[in-house]
Amino acid sequence: MAVEVDTAWDSLFSERDPSSPDLTDLTIGAPGPEVLASLPKVFMEAATHRLTTDTGGLFQYGPEVGIRAFRTELASFLTRRYGDRPVAPGDLVTTCGATSGLQLAATVLLARTGVVFVEDPTYFISLSIISGDLGLRVVAIPMDEEGIDVVELEEAVRREREVMGAVEEGRFWAMVYTIPNYHNPTGFTMTKERGKQLIDVASRHAMLVLCDDVYNLLSYSPPPYSRLRALEDGQACVISNGSLSKVVAPGLRLGWVEGPPHLTSRLAASGYLLSGGSMNNLTSGIVTSLLSLGLLDTRLDDCRQLYKARMAAAVGLLEGLPEGWSVSDPGGGYFLWVTGPSDLTTFCSRLRQEGVGVLVGARASSTSPPSCSSSFRLSIAYYTEERISEAVSTIVVRARGFQEMSSPH
Amino acid sequence: MAVEVDTAWDSLFSERDPSSPDLTDLTIGAPGPEVLASLPKVFMEAATHRLTTDTGGLFQYGPEVGIRAFRTELASFLTRRYGDRPVAPGDLVTTCGATSGLQLAATVLLARTGVVFVEDPTYFISLSIISGDLGLRVVAIPMDEEGIDVVELEEAVRREREVMGAVEEGRFWAMVYTIPNYHNPTGFTMTKERGKQLIDVASRHAMLVLCDDVYNLLSYSPPPYSRLRALEDGQACVISNGSLSKVVAPGLRLGWVEGPPHLTSRLAASGYLLSGGSMNNLTSGIVTSLLSLGLLDTRLDDCRQLYKARMAAAVGLLEGLPEGWSVSDPGGGYFLWVTGPSDLTTFCSRLRQEGVGVLVGARASSTSPPSCSSSFRLSIAYYTEERISEAVSTIVVRARGFQEMSSPH
Repeated sequence: MAVEVDTAWDSLFSERDPSSPDLTDLTIGAPGPEVLASLPKVFMEAATHRLTTDTGGLFQYGPEVGIRAFRTELASFLTRRYGDRPVAPGDLVTTCGATSGLQLAATVLLARTGVVFVEDPTYFISLSIISGDLGLRVVAIPMDEEGIDVVELEEAVRREREVMGAVEEGRFWAMVYTIPNYHNPTGFTMTKERGKQLIDVASRHAMLVLCDDVYNLLSYSPPPYSRLRALEDGQACVISNGSLSKVVAPGLRLGWVEGPPHLTSRLAASGYLLSGGSMNNLTSGIVTSLLSLGLLDTRLDDCRQLYKARMAAAVGLLEGLPEGWSVSDPGGGYFLWVTGPSDLTTFCSRLRQEGVGVLVGARASSTSPPSCSSSFRLSIAYYTEERISEAVSTIVVRARGFQEMSSPH
Repeated sequence: MAVEVDTAWDSLFSERDPSSPDLTDLTIGAPGPEVLASLPKVFMEAATHRLTTDTGGLFQYGPEVGIRAFRTELASFLTRRYGDRPVAPGDLVTTCGATSGLQLAATVLLARTGVVFVEDPTYFISLSIISGDLGLRVVAIPMDEEGIDVVELEEAVRREREVMGAVEEGRFWAMVYTIPNYHNPTGFTMTKERGKQLIDVASRHAMLVLCDDVYNLLSYSPPPYSRLRALEDGQACVISNGSLSKVVAPGLRLGWVEGPPHLTSRLAASGYLLSGGSMNNLTSGIVTSLLSLGLLDTRLDDCRQLYKARMAAAVGLLEGLPEGWSVSDPGGGYFLWVTGPSDLTTFCSRLRQEGVGVLVGARASSTSPPSCSSSFRLSIAYYTEERISEAVSTIVVRARGFQEMSSPH
């Protein structure tokens, strides 16, 4: 399948080179063209349903937290799909997606001299927001297959607290930014035990925990828990930052923050929400119909089936990697994490020359020098199963070649 | 006309009391229900036009600056409607409205210890974003009917620069936040001469000028210039922060930043835009059709005619204010500014008890103690001409009563 780029509407990502249809770019963490192709029709159905009865209210500034109808339908949808801790409409603030949820929470809840503890590796563009845009101090904490290393975290917390100056009243001195479920880039899901330990550390040290929960609904095998917030037991320091970008469509720019009312009410009282009102009012109204008509359930079921098959195909092929190589076996989400026996930077560059793009692990690290240079990430979201299988087969073949070159004779 | 509140979709503003249909709340700076009532049909026409040919691209992450088709149509629309300095698609970054434009520019372009000079009075919720959310230092500069006092500004700039510490490379040490056209709350438009002086001061002191340009297209008499950026001559330190909220619908959450490419490119390189892509991709695609079908021109013409009549009616009635009182005569926009002979705080409270809400001037001041307590703002945007005239007549009658009470016998 050729990568379709509608040049009249620009390339999808400015960094992509639309002139390279021969590149299978497995760095892309976004749904592909054939997943999105049916959406204009689905969206029109929902828009017609909603707008034929709307008297103009959706075109007004909405309430700061978003219209109740959307939050009610979304809460019911999330409660049903998560299946463990129920979501209440009052726990939700409508956002423009997880990017806007992160920006809002970090700007409003965190001290301006605040510290953000992140997993190493992590979602690399979040670091551009946290450190680049907002100027917050980032401290990388190692992680393993069970999640963030809570012992290392607590040591780092003690070190940072010691040198921390005074903090504005009513703001957290620090935040843990984590991707507990189907982690980006590794695909790991934090164990239940580790999650509870993390909440305990955060709670004892008065920190906020912001979970990038954008893949959680895309589970391909029974998850240990729906989101870290489901494990909370009274502490109420966990925010679940959700989005429809990965499960429906990024272009909607619609998401939510789920958290305890004592935190969501502070978001609602921000200058940002007082000035602009609901973050994406009209779209949230139309998506309310998408929810109430059951179209989002159908969509999610379809995507889960599709991505599950792609993930299984990729993992299956990657079992053919030579000795000394390993691959994560994610229970959901977009990403696989391949680790080789030594530095793979050159290997990844050569792969790209042969038409397969993968994200070098070092790109996802905030340590200096970057860790993870012997790993790379690949995404199953953008291309068809056939195209992914072809690219993954190339990876396996090249890994065998790499291994033979590296092995002593 | 009763204020329609569709309770199924929440009240439009959480601070409003929907149980008070007897209140004519002239604090509301938003289009009213009858202006918005036709929008569902208009939006469906544009959505049908756009989505019947879309193959899913609008549901993808868009380019950081927004899709080219939207920026091209918008540039052509703005060039035509502004009528002076042309707008190029490359000067535009798509935003979620002026609130998001302000947040983005202040976060990305300004030093984190930066200073923001604002007019006194100014749009009071912007201060919540600048000072409350972002923690920037706000310095109020007096203004008169010709705009910000540039002499006072330059003195304040010198004072602030002296105590300013080191600033991160590549960021402005300070920004002037101004509303040059149809100012909120006063309705004044900065003169051309004052505008050029402001640009000169900003340029000499390496400051950014961010113009809240959300009312500019709503001109009811020939404006001296379309926006401050049209007066710039090479300095390139002015950003025009525009929005469709006041001229079409706030609920769209769609706006733009217009600025020199050396600044817009820095916005496009922010973590925020790299992570989320185009700020409101789907809506911008649908609004592209609204523009290309000429529906936005019709809409703007209708709104200008409607608001012009309301403004004329209100100004006409306010000419009946007693001696010692004055009212601005705005050439466009939403707001009128009434000034009395002494403190009007109690007067405004009593007005509200009698069913007329106005914004006490002190609310729009950031000085301590607040200035402007002998003024108040009223908006012609939300209610019908009839309802506004009724409320304004009450204001005039009460002002006469106030004057008689205050005058020595």
